[in-house]
Amino acid sequence: MKLVTFRKEDNVRTGAYVNDKVIDLNHAYVAMLKSQGVSRVEEVSKAFVPSNMIELLEGGDKSLEEASKAIDYALENEVSNPKIVFDRKDVKLEAPVLKPNKIICVGHNYREHILEMKRELPKFPVVFAKFNNAIIGPEDNIPHPEFTENLDYEAEFTFVIGKTAKNVSKEDALDYVAGYTIVNDVTARDLQRRTIQWLQGKTLDGSAPMGPWLVTKDEIPNPHDLDISLTVNGEERQRSNTSNLVFNVNHLVAFFSEIMTLEPGDVICTGTPGGVGFARDPQVFLKDGDVVRIEIDKIGALENTVKAEVNARKKEGV
Amino acid sequence: MKLVTFRKEDNVRTGAYVNDKVIDLNHAYVAMLKSQGVSRVEEVSKAFVPSNMIELLEGGDKSLEEASKAIDYALENEVSNPKIVFDRKDVKLEAPVLKPNKIICVGHNYREHILEMKRELPKFPVVFAKFNNAIIGPEDNIPHPEFTENLDYEAEFTFVIGKTAKNVSKEDALDYVAGYTIVNDVTARDLQRRTIQWLQGKTLDGSAPMGPWLVTKDEIPNPHDLDISLTVNGEERQRSNTSNLVFNVNHLVAFFSEIMTLEPGDVICTGTPGGVGFARDPQVFLKDGDVVRIEIDKIGALENTVKAEVNARKKEGV
Repeated sequence: MKLVTFRKEDNVRTGAYVNDKVIDLNHAYVAMLKSQGVSRVEEVSKAFVPSNMIELLEGGDKSLEEASKAIDYALENEVSNPKIVFDRKDVKLEAPVLKPNKIICVGHNYREHILEMKRELPKFPVVFAKFNNAIIGPEDNIPHPEFTENLDYEAEFTFVIGKTAKNVSKEDALDYVAGYTIVNDVTARDLQRRTIQWLQGKTLDGSAPMGPWLVTKDEIPNPHDLDISLTVNGEERQRSNTSNLVFNVNHLVAFFSEIMTLEPGDVICTGTPGGVGFARDPQVFLKDGDVVRIEIDKIGALENTVKAEVNARKKEGV
Repeated sequence: MKLVTFRKEDNVRTGAYVNDKVIDLNHAYVAMLKSQGVSRVEEVSKAFVPSNMIELLEGGDKSLEEASKAIDYALENEVSNPKIVFDRKDVKLEAPVLKPNKIICVGHNYREHILEMKRELPKFPVVFAKFNNAIIGPEDNIPHPEFTENLDYEAEFTFVIGKTAKNVSKEDALDYVAGYTIVNDVTARDLQRRTIQWLQGKTLDGSAPMGPWLVTKDEIPNPHDLDISLTVNGEERQRSNTSNLVFNVNHLVAFFSEIMTLEPGDVICTGTPGGVGFARDPQVFLKDGDVVRIEIDKIGALENTVKAEVNARKKEGV
C-alpha cells in the first residue's frame, strides 16, 4: 500500500493512493463494516483503522490488513461513496507522518561518496535530529528564509518505524519497520556550521519535505537496492543506490533501538549521497523558484519548489 | 502555581502541588463548575482545564486563571472530594511535560565556566536535541545501561513554552514562556564523543529526568538570578547562578523562534555550569546507586537515583 495523509477542506485524514485516486481508509472501512451489518461501527473502525497515521501504524499488521480490505471495498463501490474515494487532484497530500516523536538523521552514510572524499568509513553512524516543525508535505513549498544564504538539499531514503522497538537484533529489524518514504533533509549550511553542533541549521520550519507517501514494506522486500537521485530544475545533482549505505536499515534499527526506544511513526533518514550544493565546485545553493525533485525506486518522486520568505518582524517594520 | 503531571493507579493527570498536597485540576474544576450550576460541565472543563499538560498550556492565561480558581475551590472543599485532593505520597509525580514536540538543549552557556576554561564567549548558542523517549519523572531512577562507561550528570535550568512563538523579540520573549523547571541532561560521554554529533550520547532512555514541577512564570519574575547546584550522594559538584547565562531566556526565545516555530510544551534546557564528571580531575562518572540532586532557587529539588540496567538481549541470552 501507498499510505498518505491528505487534507480535504479542514479535515486531515489517512488514506491510500491507488491509480491516481486517494481513498479515505477510515471512511472506507466504516462503509465496509456497515455493508456487513457489523454493530458499533464507529468504535470498531476507530479501533482497527483510525484516521491518524501514527495510530494506524500502532495497529500493526492487523490494521494494515483491515485497511487493505477497505481499499478493495471502496474501489468496488466507488461511485456511490463520494466521501471515500477522491481524485488525487481534489485533495492535498500532506507528509505521511505529521508529528513523529523523533526524526533521526544519519550523516556520512554513502560509501562511494566517503571513499571519493578520501575519508575512512566510519565505525559508528553520525546521528543528528530534526524536530517535527520541519515537516512539510509533497505539495508544499520549501521556505527560504532571509537569514540564510546557504540553503541546500539532501536526498534521503527514509524509513518509518511500525512497532515499538528496544534492543532489536539486525536479523529481526525489518519486523519493526512500517515502510519507506522520501525526505529532503533541507539544510542551512551557514547555520549548520555556526557552531560544532548542526541542529540549528537542520530544523528550520519547512526543512523536512516528506512524501509523497509511505510505501508499506511488503512492496519493497529489499530496501538495499534502490536507485536514488535528485535534480534541481531538471539538472541532476545527486545519484546513488541504497546498496551504497554504510549502515543499512537493519543496522540502524539495531543500533538506535539499543540506545533508545523507537516508537511507531518515528522517522529515520538514512543519509544523503554525494553532490550536495555545498560540496560542489563552485558551490551552489537553493534560491527562490528552484524546483527540487527526489526520485527513489519503488517509492516515487518528491518534488517541492523553493519560495523566498520575508521575515515577519521585518514585514511589520519591527 | 506549581503544575505537576501525576499518576494515580493507571490515570495520568495534570495537577497542582500545594502544601504537600496534589490537586487534580480538571476534577477540581468540574466540581467547582457543578457547585455553580454550570451546564455542559464536561465540555466546559475539557475546554478550559483539560487534564493534559500541553493542552492546558495551550489554553494560555485563561486556562491558568481557571485552574487557579479550581485550586482555591478544591482546598476549601477538600474533605468531601477524595478524587480531587491527594497527599503527595499517595500519587506518583511524573515529568511535568511527558511528550513535548521538542527538547532543545544549549551547550557552553555558563560564562564563568567558559572563561575559566580560557575559551572565548560564543557568538551563537551551541544547540542540540534530546527526544522525548529520554524523559522520566522526579520519582524515577536514571537507567545506567551496560553499553556506557561514562554516564554523567548536567544540572540545567529549563523553561517551557506556553504559546506558539515565531519571530518573537527579546522584549516580548517572556510572554511566550509558561514557566520553569529542572532537567538533568544525563549524558553518555563515550557515546557523545563517538562521532562529531552529540545526539547518540544525549537521548538514551531515561536521560532527561525532569521536574518535580513546572513553576508558572508569575512566581519567578526574574529568571536570571537563581542559584543552581548539583550534588552526587550529598557532595557538591556543580554550583552557579542563572545570572551567568551567556544566552538568557529572552535571548533564547528570540533566537530559536526566528529559526523555528516554538509550540506550547516545548522544553528548552539552558545549559549546565562547570563541574561535570567528565571535566573533573580525576574524571568521575555515575554508578549504580548514586543519588543525583539538583536544586534551583524558587523551583525546588529534582533528585533521582542511578540504577544499573541489564541489556534485555543479554538477559534472554540472545
